[in-house]
This record gives sequence, structure tokens and C-alpha cells, in this order.
Amino acid sequence: MIDPLVKSFEPYRVVEGNYRIRLDKNENPYDLPDWVKEEMFEELRELSLNRYPHVTSMPAREAIADFYGLSPENVAVGNGGDELIGHLVRLFRGNHVVVTPPTFGMYTFYARLNGFPLVEVPLREDFTLDGGAVAERSKNAKVIFIASPNNPTGNLQPEEEIIEVLETGKPVVLDEAYAEFAGKSLWRLIEEYPNLVVLRTFSKAFGLAGVRAGYFLAGEEVVEALYRIKSPFSVGVMTMAAVGVVLRHPALMEKRVAKIIEERERIRRKFGEFTYPSDANFLLMRLNAHGFLLKRGIVVRKLAGRLEGHIRVTVGRRWENDELIRALKDYLEAEGCG
Amino acid sequence: MIDPLVKSFEPYRVVEGNYRIRLDKNENPYDLPDWVKEEMFEELRELSLNRYPHVTSMPAREAIADFYGLSPENVAVGNGGDELIGHLVRLFRGNHVVVTPPTFGMYTFYARLNGFPLVEVPLREDFTLDGGAVAERSKNAKVIFIASPNNPTGNLQPEEEIIEVLETGKPVVLDEAYAEFAGKSLWRLIEEYPNLVVLRTFSKAFGLAGVRAGYFLAGEEVVEALYRIKSPFSVGVMTMAAVGVVLRHPALMEKRVAKIIEERERIRRKFGEFTYPSDANFLLMRLNAHGFLLKRGIVVRKLAGRLEGHIRVTVGRRWENDELIRALKDYLEAEGCG
Repeated sequence: MIDPLVKSFEPYRVVEGNYRIRLDKNENPYDLPDWVKEEMFEELRELSLNRYPHVTSMPAREAIADFYGLSPENVAVGNGGDELIGHLVRLFRGNHVVVTPPTFGMYTFYARLNGFPLVEVPLREDFTLDGGAVAERSKNAKVIFIASPNNPTGNLQPEEEIIEVLETGKPVVLDEAYAEFAGKSLWRLIEEYPNLVVLRTFSKAFGLAGVRAGYFLAGEEVVEALYRIKSPFSVGVMTMAAVGVVLRHPALMEKRVAKIIEERERIRRKFGEFTYPSDANFLLMRLNAHGFLLKRGIVVRKLAGRLEGHIRVTVGRRWENDELIRALKDYLEAEGCG
Repeated sequence: MIDPLVKSFEPYRVVEGNYRIRLDKNENPYDLPDWVKEEMFEELRELSLNRYPHVTSMPAREAIADFYGLSPENVAVGNGGDELIGHLVRLFRGNHVVVTPPTFGMYTFYARLNGFPLVEVPLREDFTLDGGAVAERSKNAKVIFIASPNNPTGNLQPEEEIIEVLETGKPVVLDEAYAEFAGKSLWRLIEEYPNLVVLRTFSKAFGLAGVRAGYFLAGEEVVEALYRIKSPFSVGVMTMAAVGVVLRHPALMEKRVAKIIEERERIRRKFGEFTYPSDANFLLMRLNAHGFLLKRGIVVRKLAGRLEGHIRVTVGRRWENDELIRALKDYLEAEGCG
């Protein structure tokens, strides 16, 4: 009864169970402060939950557009970035989808789900993007996905490599989910490149992973096309209220981002030998410590394939990072490298 | 740059503007009472918005399963019914998608978006399902969509016709979005028919259209397959909190449903000659009154195709229905039928 393609997918799994410290999902360790939540409730008291949200999420698009000084016609909002990725794989004319592994898995997931051929152009040894190699494989590409900072490696991609890809004129989705932690974004290039889609999210720096709100910035042609195929009403009124509230308090976000960067660098200094530089809110470590940490109640992401033997560790709150550091020191000692 | 298939879709449009009375989207006219909202806020104060929701929405699935006395393995939850329909068109083995027009447009939308051939088996003259005709066209069907009560005609479909379709063994999505207004549901048939998916929503009787929460009840095989291809985390923690809260107050929902049914019948009695019987929260009327009503500040749904010259009118609050009745009487008078 079930389609064989559907059966070929494994259910998405996360480590479940009551672990003390969760450093596996690149979440922001700080929940919204109570006063921000109350501000949101204040708004929700006035909103009608029984009425459908705006058909193309205009209130959220306007709030985001104001934040960037753009027009709402340059902004699309989705139920998390995932909904948008699901549409972006099929939005453009062309044959195959280009991805640059090791990178975020959802690009491949949606390409496979839609039966589009995948072309993989691996990142270089140092995880930088090989813009020339991507450009070479871009003929007949529907869309090219590039993450910067890249997940799970953490590095920003060189601007000149990205521009080399943009110059092909093929649609490029630049996933900047972690850009706030890099302090650098190429979103302004959307004015120059109508083939550029800059994907962003409220799940990381803004700390709204539980709410599901992602967005992209792009030329009007792309945004207009997206709203032809996106489910109407997919972004609920509570989600839009949450987005509105956090955008009104950018200083709060910035303070937390600064704290996370400070902690990221603190952890990296302790394990420099085993840790890659990061422009995100997580660290890639050449330590096969997933099982060891789990026994200590600390969940991190175990990597595979080219990154076999590596873990990806989200930067947590200070006490969580202290525990992580202690546990990793014990791990190294047990392994005889301490 | 944009895919021609994408361009072939028209953007989804709704009547925008500040109209006084909105009877166009089959919404529940009653927002949650303040005390229920406060109960929800109480819960949200304790929830971490910075953490991803449960990967397969278990808290909401458990709440729904408890409500029906089912297992969570028989329940799938989506960001509105639309997200689930988008997955249900591709979940099953087979070639084409069967729809029974005039009916809800999203089945066709998602079939077209995925490039699946559509087979239309029109409802009979009286809008009842022709189970035999559907069964005849079911060979090689991926999935068959049946809405009961049907939208926009309002009628429940005869159980024996639905069973005739179920007996083919082909996957059947029975969309019962309006079942609470009919006081009748076939959801218990999922125990007998592993090919049955009963689609339900919190947008109508439960009054959560703004929140986006739909679900389906089905055999474990179907639910398990859905979670292989559904975006993880697509149902946010605020959405799950809203679902949990309304399910704890079924009497509130039932009271409102009773009131809506009473009002539905009141409107129908006034315009019996022009109005079809309804088992839903809306009425199909053989009145070409969309423009006339709009001038009075009342938005209803203008229908087309086989239902050209008809309108679909959502049952509103008593004062809204009073205004509707007054305006329709004036319309009939102006048309010389009063």
C-alpha cells in the first residue's frame, strides 16, 4: 500500500530520553525572558485564534521587511525553514539539485522526496566551498544549496566562492540559519542577484525553535513564485505574534548571541587541537565521544560518513558548557590523550 | 528561472479588505474565551520556546489519542490539514489521484503540484458520492479523496457509498473537517479498514483556524509511513499547547457547535427554496449574491464551474446571521423574487 519511495526513507530520529544537558540540536540555550513572553501573550489576548491567519503571512513579512529595510515583496515566511526548503527544491526550472556535503541534510531529503537527481560537490578538505567546482556542475541545475555558516562544520563560506556560484545565474539558496553568530551575512546581494535566495530562521539566534518560523529574502520574482505553490495560511497567528515580539527586541538577541560566541570560544580554547573554528553556535570536534558524553547525561550529535568519529556540540549555557568541558577532559584522559 | 509547473498555479486569493462580516472561510465565529486563552498562556509560561518541539508531535498525538480512546500510533498531526494532504497525495503506491468534485480544492492542488494524474468522479446531481463509479476508477489509484460533510456542498456522504469505495482496498482519505457539525463520523472504521485515513482538524468546531492544527486517524502502517516523509518538528509547541487546552474542554466546543447548528437551520428555514441541506457550518445557496453582499460589507464565497451562480455562506454569530438574512431578503427583492 505504501509507496516504495516513502519506504526508502528512514524516520527522522533524535536521541530521546531525559538527559540533563541537550547540546544536540543547535538550539539557543536561552528561553525568552518572562517579560517578553508576557508581551506576546498581551498580543495574543487581542488576536482571534478562530480566524485563519493572513493568507500570505503579511504581518510577519512586514515585520521582517522593516527589520531589514526591505519590501515585504522580498520576504517569504514559512513554518520553519524546512517548509521553505521543501518548496525551494521545486520552485525553479531545471533538472537536478546541487548540494555541497557535508552539510545540512534537509536539502537532500526534499530533493529525494521529489525524485530530483542530486549532484554532490563536496566541500574541500578544509570544508570551504569550491565555487568553481559547483559552477561546473550547475548546468541544468534546478537549484544549488550552500550553507554559510555551514552545518555541521561551522565555517562561513568565502564570499568570492559564493559569488562565483551566483555568477552562473542559476538559482542559489544560501542558507544562513546561523548568520547572527558569524556577524556576517550576504543578504544584501539579493539586490544584485535575482537568482539568490537567502534563507534565515528564528530558530537559532532568536531562540524560537519551538515556534517554527523561518524566512527567506530574495528578489520579487522568487517570492511571488513561492506564494503560488505554498500552502495558504501555513504560518499561524501565534507564530507571527512571536516573530513580531522578538524582532522588537533585537538587543536581547544580540546580547545572547554575544554570550554564546564567548562561550563557544571558551570551549574551543580548551580543546583547540580537536576542534574546528566555528562561526556558528556549535563546534565540530574530532572526538568520538558521543557515547561517553551520553553516559554523563550530555547529548551531542554523532556524525557519520566523511565526519565519522566526529561530534557536533551545540554551545549551551555556562554551567552546561562547564559540565561538557569536564566530561570531555575525562574522555580524553580515559583515551590516553589527556 | 521559475519552473513552468509553478507558474501554472495562480496565487491563492482571498477577498481582502476591511469588511464587517466574514462568512467566507468556514471559520468558527467564536474565539476561545479569555479563561481558556489564559489557561494556554499558563502552559506556555512553563514551555521552552527555544527548544525544538517533539520530533513527531507526541504530546499532541497523545492528547488526541486519549480523546478518541486510540493509541498515538493511530494519530498523525500536521501544521493544519493542508500539510497532511500534501503528504497523503504521495504516501501510497499507485498512479493517479481520485477526487470527487465539486469538493475541497486542496486535493487537486497537491496532486497537480506533484505531477500526479487526476481522475475526477463527479458527485451525483444531488451531490451524493457515487461509490460504484469511484470504485470503477480506483484501479491503480494512489489515493481517493472523499469529503464528508463535503465542502462546498455541505452534505454528509452515505455510509454505504463510502464503504463501497473502502472495499476496493485502495487508500481512501475521508476528510471529515466538518464532522462535529454533522454529529456523525466514520472514524471507527479505521479499525476495520487499514486503507482508511480519517482527516480531521482543529480549525472548525474547535475554533483554532489561526493556530494551524490538523490531524488524521488511521492504521499504524499509514501513520508510520507518514512520519518517514513528514518534516520533523512541523507542529510547534504553542500549537500543541492550544490543542491540549481545547481538548480538555470538549463541552465548550459542543455548546458552540450546537449554537452554530441552530443558527444554520434558522438561516436555512428563511431561504429554504434557495438553500441546500447542510451537515456542516456553512450553507450552499443557489443565489448569485456575492457582489450584492460584498457591498453590504458581508463576505461570502463565490463559487464557479458546476456551482456557478451559487454562494457558500459560513454560519456566523447571531447578529452576523441577522445581517446576512436582511441583506439576502433585500437581494431577493431587488431580483424580483422576494
